[in-house]
Amino acid sequence: MTTITAAEVVDVRFPTSLTADGSDAMNKDGDYSAAYVILRTDDPELSGFGFTFTIGRGNDICVLAAEQRALPLIGLRVEDVVGDLGGIYRSLKSDSQLRWLGPEKGVEHLAMAAVMNAVWDLAARVAGKPLWRLLADMTPEELVDVADLQYLSDALTRSEAIAMLTELQPTREARIAELEATGYPCYTTSAGWLGYSDEKLRRLCQEAVDAGYRHVKLKVGANLDDDIRRCRIAREVLGDDANLMIDANQVWDVPEAIEWVKALAEFKPLWIEEPTSPDDILGHAAVRRAVAPIGVATGEHGMNRVLFKQMFQAEAIDFCQLDSARLASINEILSVYLMAKKFGVPVCPHAGGVGLCELVQHLSIFDYVAVSGSLEGRVTEYVDHLHEHFVDPCIVENGAYRLPTLPGYSAEMHEASLAEFAFPAGSYWAGRSAAASLVSAG
Amino acid sequence: MTTITAAEVVDVRFPTSLTADGSDAMNKDGDYSAAYVILRTDDPELSGFGFTFTIGRGNDICVLAAEQRALPLIGLRVEDVVGDLGGIYRSLKSDSQLRWLGPEKGVEHLAMAAVMNAVWDLAARVAGKPLWRLLADMTPEELVDVADLQYLSDALTRSEAIAMLTELQPTREARIAELEATGYPCYTTSAGWLGYSDEKLRRLCQEAVDAGYRHVKLKVGANLDDDIRRCRIAREVLGDDANLMIDANQVWDVPEAIEWVKALAEFKPLWIEEPTSPDDILGHAAVRRAVAPIGVATGEHGMNRVLFKQMFQAEAIDFCQLDSARLASINEILSVYLMAKKFGVPVCPHAGGVGLCELVQHLSIFDYVAVSGSLEGRVTEYVDHLHEHFVDPCIVENGAYRLPTLPGYSAEMHEASLAEFAFPAGSYWAGRSAAASLVSAG
Repeated sequence: MTTITAAEVVDVRFPTSLTADGSDAMNKDGDYSAAYVILRTDDPELSGFGFTFTIGRGNDICVLAAEQRALPLIGLRVEDVVGDLGGIYRSLKSDSQLRWLGPEKGVEHLAMAAVMNAVWDLAARVAGKPLWRLLADMTPEELVDVADLQYLSDALTRSEAIAMLTELQPTREARIAELEATGYPCYTTSAGWLGYSDEKLRRLCQEAVDAGYRHVKLKVGANLDDDIRRCRIAREVLGDDANLMIDANQVWDVPEAIEWVKALAEFKPLWIEEPTSPDDILGHAAVRRAVAPIGVATGEHGMNRVLFKQMFQAEAIDFCQLDSARLASINEILSVYLMAKKFGVPVCPHAGGVGLCELVQHLSIFDYVAVSGSLEGRVTEYVDHLHEHFVDPCIVENGAYRLPTLPGYSAEMHEASLAEFAFPAGSYWAGRSAAASLVSAG
Repeated sequence: MTTITAAEVVDVRFPTSLTADGSDAMNKDGDYSAAYVILRTDDPELSGFGFTFTIGRGNDICVLAAEQRALPLIGLRVEDVVGDLGGIYRSLKSDSQLRWLGPEKGVEHLAMAAVMNAVWDLAARVAGKPLWRLLADMTPEELVDVADLQYLSDALTRSEAIAMLTELQPTREARIAELEATGYPCYTTSAGWLGYSDEKLRRLCQEAVDAGYRHVKLKVGANLDDDIRRCRIAREVLGDDANLMIDANQVWDVPEAIEWVKALAEFKPLWIEEPTSPDDILGHAAVRRAVAPIGVATGEHGMNRVLFKQMFQAEAIDFCQLDSARLASINEILSVYLMAKKFGVPVCPHAGGVGLCELVQHLSIFDYVAVSGSLEGRVTEYVDHLHEHFVDPCIVENGAYRLPTLPGYSAEMHEASLAEFAFPAGSYWAGRSAAASLVSAG
């Protein structure tokens, strides 16, 4: 009998602002960070690892919130936790005092994501399977039992969800075999950060094409003339056949979004990502109507399943970019995948940051195997940063994620990385006056 | 020349769960709490006071977030801050690393509310006016300059906002004189908490009628038979002329909300409040269409102005119940009032909790004086709890708020209250083992 003995949460921050990696029109100087949860057990060989992703200041707030959210897990038997992943989720979620701070959004929800990601990692390790395989081995009823369907019944009922999953159940193994051969297709954002020079943009686009990518994404929205010039460079390198996506990171009001995207239409973007406030369902619907056939994509700041429900109901998006560290782990992500299936919207999860690629590969694989059964219109983000900090890093070859094989959710970081980048006491930060300015800057 | 020298944030918690005050179908055991901000200056006679409201656990998270959010204020001249209340707001809001944790929702937004509430309190004290009067003395252009119109231009333009305010400007003083005579009408929720017995409910309803109230609100949503019995009692006491409102505190999915409200229709409620998730704009619109002529009210968990914009655009609500400690103070609240005016929706602010009544009286008065110019369909919540902790408590007579006269936003608490209820070191909590259980309960 194994028991959860502690929930440690580490504030880990990487100084990405120094190189403009990750720079965009809204987020000019992010330091990619994680509130990193370690669920310890009395078996020294067994822990669960999970995190939420932030971009620097305030990561300590998520750490505090995750410490509190994880408290009820301490002292529970591992068998009871991994044997009732729906019940554990509902139990953690049911704290009405903490609920007031959201509900189900912002810091508290990020903390819930971090904790439940660690719980799911633990469950997959106990099962001795990578998370995607643990999910693919669950029956439709088991999957729907762990999904959070609260507030969704006007869009998706339990029986509809079971019926959709049941239809694909007999053919799951064939799709697993297919992905084991080909991998899951991805696209790269590494080429197009706003802080990069034209020369670097051109070189990175060419490298992406040479590496087998058929999709490249550029950040836009700071200056229209710059965007036209950069899109022209990208399209020149990509040719007419590859896909160019553009991403405004929420900088526009709705009318401005429509005008700006129309000005970039000549470069035939596949989608405009985050054209406006991530909360603006009706705004995204208006943009979508105005800029078609350019698609509308959003979701990395999609706060919870109720937002996504409405995005689907309002026909506001062509691509759903759910985030594995912002939604409350598999319990809520599964609900979004099920709704996306019903409404016919492809899910192309947000990744990048630190560790998000490690998580989303499991989600995309599971989606193809058990939920959507389709790769059409689907491509998962990949950014080639910070993978060296993970024990089981994702592997991308020929523009596709290889299937993870180790048990867990691929969320574990190297202890040496924690020792170096823990904030503010890690060896990287302790020596730098930068640490002080990071805390106090306005 | 006066300078802001410190931003102290106090975790204050009142043990309201002991008496079931504030109990409802979602929140059974709240301990009304505040993350209480004190902006100190080098003038010992001048400080600014503000807070956000929570219901217990996690209040410390809001405290930490408010401490960080207030840091850039320290060292600024008071004259510069109160002379550019729009610029200060935008400056605090512009931290892109903290923005990632919302954006503009959850803990970070509650913290922004607390800090900016203190800034507005400080501004009113410097002006020597109650906040409602400070606002009523601003020109339409000055008001629109402090309002946050980002993401709203598809619903409300700057010029429309100025035009609406300009139309009412010449008659502001007449409405002030009217309110000085009559007060601003309010309703009471004190009668109808879910944890109260039928006898207590009947007695409190009668006391409300005797005290001059024309509106009484009941909590519903835990058990339909109980709700029918309690609504019958309330309607018996109130008679046919007074208004009965019901409040479900988000416990239903959309189809369940419609069914349950229809089962209570015989008691002719004026509105159903929070029938479902506060994020579900389209869901509220569906409920509204189904239960008319019963109105739909929501907003105490309305996370930001983008949510309210869509509630108006989707014709989802009959009553807008914005919250003074959840929206980012006057800068964002003003935007919601302006949109409500344009879309013809009365604003009936959420209050109760601790200190919310003290704040919202200023908002309602200002709305009538300068924005809506109407009392039709408008009634502001009032709950008779915890006012004794405030230096300038609200005063309600004959079912109406009297106009505050002291300078500021009425947000200052007595030092003795802080000494007693600061958590966990205040004299009330220090002696109680309850403190430990409050921190660790699941």
